Amino acid sequence: MVYKKVGNQSVIFSEKPLIRGRGTVVGQKEGEGPLAKNFDIILDDDMYGEKSWEKAESKMLKEAMMKAVNRAGITEKDIDVMLSGDLLNQLMSSSFMARDLHIPFLGLYGACSTMTESLVLGSMLIDGGFAKNVLVGASSHFCTAERQFRMPVEHGNQRPPSAQWTATAAGGVVVSSASDVALCSSAGQNRIRVESATVGKVIDAGIKDANQMGAAMAPAAVDTLLNHLEDTQRSLDYYDLVATGDLGFIGKDIMMDLLAGAGLNKKMIFSHYDDCGTMLFTKEQDVHGGGSGCGCSACVFAGHLLKEMEQGKIKKLLLMSTGAMLSTISPFQGESIPGIAHAVSLEVE
Amino acid sequence: MVYKKVGNQSVIFSEKPLIRGRGTVVGQKEGEGPLAKNFDIILDDDMYGEKSWEKAESKMLKEAMMKAVNRAGITEKDIDVMLSGDLLNQLMSSSFMARDLHIPFLGLYGACSTMTESLVLGSMLIDGGFAKNVLVGASSHFCTAERQFRMPVEHGNQRPPSAQWTATAAGGVVVSSASDVALCSSAGQNRIRVESATVGKVIDAGIKDANQMGAAMAPAAVDTLLNHLEDTQRSLDYYDLVATGDLGFIGKDIMMDLLAGAGLNKKMIFSHYDDCGTMLFTKEQDVHGGGSGCGCSACVFAGHLLKEMEQGKIKKLLLMSTGAMLSTISPFQGESIPGIAHAVSLEVE
Repeated sequence: MVYKKVGNQSVIFSEKPLIRGRGTVVGQKEGEGPLAKNFDIILDDDMYGEKSWEKAESKMLKEAMMKAVNRAGITEKDIDVMLSGDLLNQLMSSSFMARDLHIPFLGLYGACSTMTESLVLGSMLIDGGFAKNVLVGASSHFCTAERQFRMPVEHGNQRPPSAQWTATAAGGVVVSSASDVALCSSAGQNRIRVESATVGKVIDAGIKDANQMGAAMAPAAVDTLLNHLEDTQRSLDYYDLVATGDLGFIGKDIMMDLLAGAGLNKKMIFSHYDDCGTMLFTKEQDVHGGGSGCGCSACVFAGHLLKEMEQGKIKKLLLMSTGAMLSTISPFQGESIPGIAHAVSLEVE
Repeated sequence: MVYKKVGNQSVIFSEKPLIRGRGTVVGQKEGEGPLAKNFDIILDDDMYGEKSWEKAESKMLKEAMMKAVNRAGITEKDIDVMLSGDLLNQLMSSSFMARDLHIPFLGLYGACSTMTESLVLGSMLIDGGFAKNVLVGASSHFCTAERQFRMPVEHGNQRPPSAQWTATAAGGVVVSSASDVALCSSAGQNRIRVESATVGKVIDAGIKDANQMGAAMAPAAVDTLLNHLEDTQRSLDYYDLVATGDLGFIGKDIMMDLLAGAGLNKKMIFSHYDDCGTMLFTKEQDVHGGGSGCGCSACVFAGHLLKEMEQGKIKKLLLMSTGAMLSTISPFQGESIPGIAHAVSLEVE
């Protein structure tokens, strides 16, 4: 057996699992943002023809997953196992999606870090020889998140400028084994492989303000990134792009300050680092602190970043979805909001 | 690379990960049941010195995890990654446990199937060469579950006879790589290896009554078991014991009927099948339908079943924790309660 762990928290895949398919479904607002042309389905109505927002989110995830399967040129029957999660209590979106798709299912909860959590575990299942095709994904919905974590949307309550906008978005990705390599090359597209991964720790910076999610998550992202770079003996500019999940405008600034404080070159940080939460929306879209939610990095990754890789514009990517461990009752019990971030590196073949 | 999948849903581990340590913490009522002598810590007070039930549950999980690490003869620093989950919204117990233990963490949600979900994934991480020591576990608490899913405990509302009793219990297990084999033999104890696993599908039998969890989960358990037996070409009596997670008294009867209906020998079912939810409590303990919750199979497995294996009383075990995909709001939106079950087979060396 090949032992694949390097350093304290990272693994380097020996078989380098392939990204075989990808699919995205986003809401109306996300479809008016700068990345609109990269998404497969843009909703006219965030209810998506369903009777509740929760059912709409579940349907979005299902459609994104199915789109990824279709683009991979396979069917649900070819998927060995599916891993996904969302922000809803008891993973309502993922659970009912999994019921409808009837594929062996492992539910994950990593708050907004779920896209990379599913990608880390899915790639491990491929690289370890447990599956040939794995379907991974994550979703979030502005209205389901607002009413679960904050206020009934109908209140129309005022949000502070630091509050982030939960993306109404879902992303799905098919990860496949290298032995299926012949099947994975679309005409004129680069083939993308999962190269390494770093599992993050829960880091508590003591933030207690649920409207400061970026500040709560940035220290975890810094911890995971520095550990990843140390474990793999790489410099930040090894990657064309390091993308955090949903730190938003404020969290991104904190991240850059913390990285500079850790001794990283500021110019290098500016030219190699960005945050999906700042890429999904423009500031003019009135999203305050920027995008957030599992669906934020899920759709930016599966819609935009993987497309950039297919086209060779990005050759080496480190995706680090970021999550805030905020329960619906933990703040009332005096708990702070710890963060977590998992990293996955991908490279064009 | 060795391809480890067999049949449709199962894998057979090539390195056969070792069970290196196990730990359990249970509540007062669980400590008065027939398995009391097998648990490491029995609480006098289910608040466990904390200010809330949620904090108590998180502490129970942490202590069970630490007990498993201690019994394995290692420290937290030797654990490469930790996988766990619970029933609380946003995995409050696991998240804060992971913050305190400061070990790379992957959160899981599989309702009450989480113990086997964590064991399946943890064993895959070991067998795939991604880690040398993995810590897996799950927890539940009667009071946190009652107030989240049902009624404020203080109401003292009447429960129908079919309602199950969420176990106040936590279980943790250290799974390790075979290359550490020399370290894993305690005097006079059998060594236990994880042999195979089956990832379950979400199965919806259309049950809508949240007081009939056993009925909601039994069809998923039957589906996973029949798939496991077919994939591995085994008969039920290949195992000394097949143990479902928390079907309880009613669910167990349904399971036995369904298995008999599927053509399995009734006598064989009687002598080789049991349910952790019927083992944890006696009927005299006023638990109505029997035990349930992630902690039910977690503590019965880590406390009782693994001990029986160490002592050679059980040589081949199939553990199948069972989960009901019930959200706090899904029933109000007209959804039924689908079930899921994952299976892990273990054998004495």
